[in-house]
Amino acid sequence: MHNISKNFMLRAIELSMISLKEDGGPFGCVIVKNNEIISEGFNEVTNKNDPTAHAEIVSIRNACNKLNTFNLKGTQMFTSCEPCPMCLSAIYWSHIDKIYYGNNRKDAAKIGFDDSYIYDELSLDPNKRKILLEQINEKEAIKAFEEWEVKTDKTVY
Amino acid sequence: MHNISKNFMLRAIELSMISLKEDGGPFGCVIVKNNEIISEGFNEVTNKNDPTAHAEIVSIRNACNKLNTFNLKGTQMFTSCEPCPMCLSAIYWSHIDKIYYGNNRKDAAKIGFDDSYIYDELSLDPNKRKILLEQINEKEAIKAFEEWEVKTDKTVY
Repeated sequence: MHNISKNFMLRAIELSMISLKEDGGPFGCVIVKNNEIISEGFNEVTNKNDPTAHAEIVSIRNACNKLNTFNLKGTQMFTSCEPCPMCLSAIYWSHIDKIYYGNNRKDAAKIGFDDSYIYDELSLDPNKRKILLEQINEKEAIKAFEEWEVKTDKTVY
Repeated sequence: MHNISKNFMLRAIELSMISLKEDGGPFGCVIVKNNEIISEGFNEVTNKNDPTAHAEIVSIRNACNKLNTFNLKGTQMFTSCEPCPMCLSAIYWSHIDKIYYGNNRKDAAKIGFDDSYIYDELSLDPNKRKILLEQINEKEAIKAFEEWEVKTDKTVY
């Protein structure tokens, strides 16, 4: 398995270099199922004006589109950098089995990316965070949840 | 400001009800700039086979597309439920000023959504998480970061 993993990671790294050359952030990613690459992605935040278009999110969307599912159980992700909390959470939502990564969040911080800062913010009590959260209209908001709870034909994810 | 906020939130809640009726998760969101709604979104995970298509992410993408930017400084988000860590991180990446929310993560957990579980997982030491992370090929991966660091014409975000 180790040599195979290495090859998949080398492709993710290659994609990070391609992204760099196309003026995107230096991040690349592939998703693998049954020892084959089923999707690839690189950072398109600035090129597509989409702050959510990290390499991992792009790869997840591509994989789901290809397999026609919102559940990626049975797949592995190879990403050139440790996923930021947005991407790590997306990995949880999509049920990917395992993550292999190259650079880590400290390496990302050193070249000016906020991954480490956002990890720190998320672990803070909400009222101590830089971006304020305020709860309003909870009595009106809960109704959709109550209807969801009793809905019999819902698609759970 | 408070009455205005209430109206924006009521629209987000209305979107959560629309989503429910269209067999999506019961979540809606709007983004506001200068006291006007500039984008809307609701949960499209199951309908679009995209585990990243939460109401907040959809709204962020729509707002960025409309304003032709990857930076939403000067905007506020009104979301029918406290953002999950994926969405909260996306809010940090997009530099939204403030978040108003209706239901909270515990309400979401009660009706079967993993928001609270993922917050708990993210705060754990990586080797204690349910989804394993393994660092490989760090020597090869760092090259793209080194090139980024010395690149003079890069677009920073």
